[in-house]
Amino acid sequence: MSYQAPLKEIRFALEQAELTAVCALPGYEDCNVELTDAILDEAAKFAEGVLDPINRAGDKGNVWADYAVTTAEGFSEAYAQFRDSGWGGLRAPQAFGGQGLPALVAMATEEMWCASNLSFSLAPLLTLGAIEALAHHADAELQAVYLPNMCAGIWTGTMNLTEPQAGSDLAQVKTRAVPADDGSYLITGQKIFITWGEHDMADNIVHLVLARLPDAPAGVKGISLFVVPKFLVNADGSLGARNDARCVSIEHKLGIHGSPTAVMSFGDEGGAVGYLVGEANKGLSYMFTMMNHARLGVAVEGMAISERAYQQAVDYARDRVQSRELGSPNPAPAAIIRHPDVRRMLMTMRAQIEAQRLLTYLAGATLDRASHHPVAAEKARNQALVNFLIPIVKGWNTEQANEITSLGVQVHGGMGFIEETGAAQYYRDARITSIYEGTTGIQAMDLIGRKLASENGATARALLEAVKGDAARLDALGAPFAATRAHLEAGVAAAEACVDYVLANFATAPQGPAAGSVPFLKLMGILLGGWQLARAALVVDAQRQNADADTAFIDAKQITARFFGEHLLPQVPGLAAAITGGADSALALDDAAF
Amino acid sequence: MSYQAPLKEIRFALEQAELTAVCALPGYEDCNVELTDAILDEAAKFAEGVLDPINRAGDKGNVWADYAVTTAEGFSEAYAQFRDSGWGGLRAPQAFGGQGLPALVAMATEEMWCASNLSFSLAPLLTLGAIEALAHHADAELQAVYLPNMCAGIWTGTMNLTEPQAGSDLAQVKTRAVPADDGSYLITGQKIFITWGEHDMADNIVHLVLARLPDAPAGVKGISLFVVPKFLVNADGSLGARNDARCVSIEHKLGIHGSPTAVMSFGDEGGAVGYLVGEANKGLSYMFTMMNHARLGVAVEGMAISERAYQQAVDYARDRVQSRELGSPNPAPAAIIRHPDVRRMLMTMRAQIEAQRLLTYLAGATLDRASHHPVAAEKARNQALVNFLIPIVKGWNTEQANEITSLGVQVHGGMGFIEETGAAQYYRDARITSIYEGTTGIQAMDLIGRKLASENGATARALLEAVKGDAARLDALGAPFAATRAHLEAGVAAAEACVDYVLANFATAPQGPAAGSVPFLKLMGILLGGWQLARAALVVDAQRQNADADTAFIDAKQITARFFGEHLLPQVPGLAAAITGGADSALALDDAAF
Repeated sequence: MSYQAPLKEIRFALEQAELTAVCALPGYEDCNVELTDAILDEAAKFAEGVLDPINRAGDKGNVWADYAVTTAEGFSEAYAQFRDSGWGGLRAPQAFGGQGLPALVAMATEEMWCASNLSFSLAPLLTLGAIEALAHHADAELQAVYLPNMCAGIWTGTMNLTEPQAGSDLAQVKTRAVPADDGSYLITGQKIFITWGEHDMADNIVHLVLARLPDAPAGVKGISLFVVPKFLVNADGSLGARNDARCVSIEHKLGIHGSPTAVMSFGDEGGAVGYLVGEANKGLSYMFTMMNHARLGVAVEGMAISERAYQQAVDYARDRVQSRELGSPNPAPAAIIRHPDVRRMLMTMRAQIEAQRLLTYLAGATLDRASHHPVAAEKARNQALVNFLIPIVKGWNTEQANEITSLGVQVHGGMGFIEETGAAQYYRDARITSIYEGTTGIQAMDLIGRKLASENGATARALLEAVKGDAARLDALGAPFAATRAHLEAGVAAAEACVDYVLANFATAPQGPAAGSVPFLKLMGILLGGWQLARAALVVDAQRQNADADTAFIDAKQITARFFGEHLLPQVPGLAAAITGGADSALALDDAAF
Repeated sequence: MSYQAPLKEIRFALEQAELTAVCALPGYEDCNVELTDAILDEAAKFAEGVLDPINRAGDKGNVWADYAVTTAEGFSEAYAQFRDSGWGGLRAPQAFGGQGLPALVAMATEEMWCASNLSFSLAPLLTLGAIEALAHHADAELQAVYLPNMCAGIWTGTMNLTEPQAGSDLAQVKTRAVPADDGSYLITGQKIFITWGEHDMADNIVHLVLARLPDAPAGVKGISLFVVPKFLVNADGSLGARNDARCVSIEHKLGIHGSPTAVMSFGDEGGAVGYLVGEANKGLSYMFTMMNHARLGVAVEGMAISERAYQQAVDYARDRVQSRELGSPNPAPAAIIRHPDVRRMLMTMRAQIEAQRLLTYLAGATLDRASHHPVAAEKARNQALVNFLIPIVKGWNTEQANEITSLGVQVHGGMGFIEETGAAQYYRDARITSIYEGTTGIQAMDLIGRKLASENGATARALLEAVKGDAARLDALGAPFAATRAHLEAGVAAAEACVDYVLANFATAPQGPAAGSVPFLKLMGILLGGWQLARAALVVDAQRQNADADTAFIDAKQITARFFGEHLLPQVPGLAAAITGGADSALALDDAAF
């Protein structure tokens, strides 16, 4: 079936994330709810009409030959339309031709790109990351040469971090950069896992490459960032010679087959010409600048591919007729959406997706406040909050994407295992999201270390207080929400115990908190997701009185919030028990005994 | 890396399942521990030396052309060796040339086939199912024609149940059988998802086909079972004419690519010759006869593919060096097996696999007691117990296989997403196990309906009492097991509440229990798995005093049991809350609102 952008849900999430207030921030004055509405309508058309129809073709993969990659059928044409429509520059800086819209608004369009065609969506996502790095850290000359074409989507960008021996541990980067006489550098080395590292959709590809200068200190403090274009750029802006940077192969992957993952070789013929971005040896900190955006982008991917899988599962469950309805006098076979376990699966998908959207959009709005709030204290508070939320949504959305797309397969029964059905593609595509841009383990260590312990739990405690306050407000919704309130409150207490445990142990014996870090990340995802849906249940309840109230929407939102409260929130105390009491058994086994 | 049969773990599980007592059952006198040991050693060699090396080749898939299937490189040769070694007849009836060994012993070899090459293992598994159906229900003439060659592995067997409109709901079967003058029948219809429905590994393929006679009643009471051979068999036993039964295509699947999944067309040229098995209109009950074996076989598959993924993940985690060890003064990068979250992932895999092996082998031993126990009351008690255990191990092992093989991918980081690594194949292969032979939803309804409600919870309550008793015995292991004991006891209480809930509601309003049926199945899997590991911890503790005690094994088993107790058992109360309190929110959403 074809993708239908869930515009009502997206608008609801934007409202709960306070879009109006975000648009009122200094620098975002050109944006407003009406403009956003218009953008969403157009984005939905593009996702449904252009990106979705080529998603299956993308699954057939790309062809590599002679260092060039021919993308799947329709991708080049779709990218040309994407570029010409200006979608790539939505949140790129206005100074270089972008539209400078809030991250929150761009995120809503990105959800649709990811859901309709995850492979395709990675090309503009990576380009935006490269734009951000250059906009923040490159000198004016480099910016002038590269940013306008990148913001216009004429050139795409890549991130070249990973090497065979340097994955999560960038201290091991070996790629070398040697100064040339003209102020440029000659880059030599091999990079792997380079998303959209080579393709035929754009005139030029701007590689951002981490490398070491000859005199660089060892470890992460000796890594510098370079621009290495596929084609050198002449003084007049026209394209010059082919650079000594080549895609020597592409990977045969489990999923996202439409997105070429390149092995890049720099300097096979003496050295690829590169240009230093900012100062020497600061490459890693420059990478950190864009990490929040990139990780939030992957959080959106996880949620979006889950939404896609949900839509397909619902469609199948409505159509597929099999077995009589349980407890019904009618002996005729019923659509399987009538079967209780199928409903449970669909509700499990739906409830998590809605919670993830609310929490992820909240993170997006918080990112905008962190960058644009006029009051320094609020700016700082929001920065701390978004720093805390990002590993949670990145980790939780993507881990659950594996489970949710698996449920999507399961709803299809045997047909789910047949590739033609399409459900399996989402399952395969989703699998990368909990790995790249930092595995869930990396996110979880970031959460308990850099985010929780380093500020002594301040943001976590403030968030838990907010959850507690909203849990109490659920009383207004009466008996149907009593269990949800109880599970929220038990969840807060369990989370507090975990925060105390992490803070008490992280400085002296970090192995224990580290062993519970992923369960803690999931715990926070579930608890904060349940909180956001509880808030949604309160918000829609207030709308019941309206003359034009959308009762079906209100009912659905409240039922979904209760499902989350009654089926998912109860997992929290069990996770807490493992976190606070399970470190020893997790760590005790002798290496040789595995 | 290559597969290493976990013989020590397998022998431990056989002992805990009381192999000696099983071998003492009437009819199994030819079996004993020494013979089993010898069989296991040879099976390990075969799995490691023959089946494992062709597993990756199988992933490249089979080729269909002109109604024939050419299997992947090495499969035909491996099958010839398998056949000549007599592996296929291990638990086939002695009357027809099989060895008549206990299911428990055969299961241990089958674990190795499944782990080393899941696709391959399905050919003998399906053949055994067909053997069992014919041995129980066919007349002597049919048995004499087909069983000797099937038990010898010279011919393979298939199960033809599913049709496009008849998946879980076999009442919808449309394939027709018309009596011919000579006592045979002419079969016409299409069957899908026929595992090993066509291939080049055996001289003949014996299809067991569900079809309707002209005067058959509607629904499941009008289905008959037929033997439809690929080649007709002459009076002298030689192969005759090609039957009108053809594989018209094979499916492009997510996994188990080495196993051809056929679309079978019967009667395109007038009717395939078939022979009625047993009595008319009893086909479905005949299928039920072999369902326990088949479902237990898939339970083994889930556990086995998880073991394979675990071995590969451990191997990678030992080799891959990345990032310094947390809390260590040594700044050099360490093998990732030293990182707490990697250990948590490996322990999560390991603990579940060990628990599943113990519980699944217990089910195997119980199946043997149910079929061979000399005391009628014990026979009946064991039949009820195995009936109860089978949906649990089939559902739980296979659902967890998805999670465990996913953890296997995750341990590999980015390399896990690259197909060459191999981790992704296990993830894809595992995905079918929670779908075929009855989805988890079907298992769960079987569990709460036919197994729990129909006997008013007798077996469940007896099992929970046993768990309670062993939990109390954990006191002997002191403080390290205090948390495990507490979580086991809390788990029993939670399970009792669920049993009460199901029994109170199943007759009058089955939708509620049905909505919680899969969570209940998982809850029972976790609780009984934790129980089996707790028993193991007690068993090994008694061995500590022995002069030749394998201390490393004992320590590992106890640490693994504690990990299960502290990380997995705490999930039980949360599942119970969803089961007993979540039916309304699972069922309330309007169909149109999905």
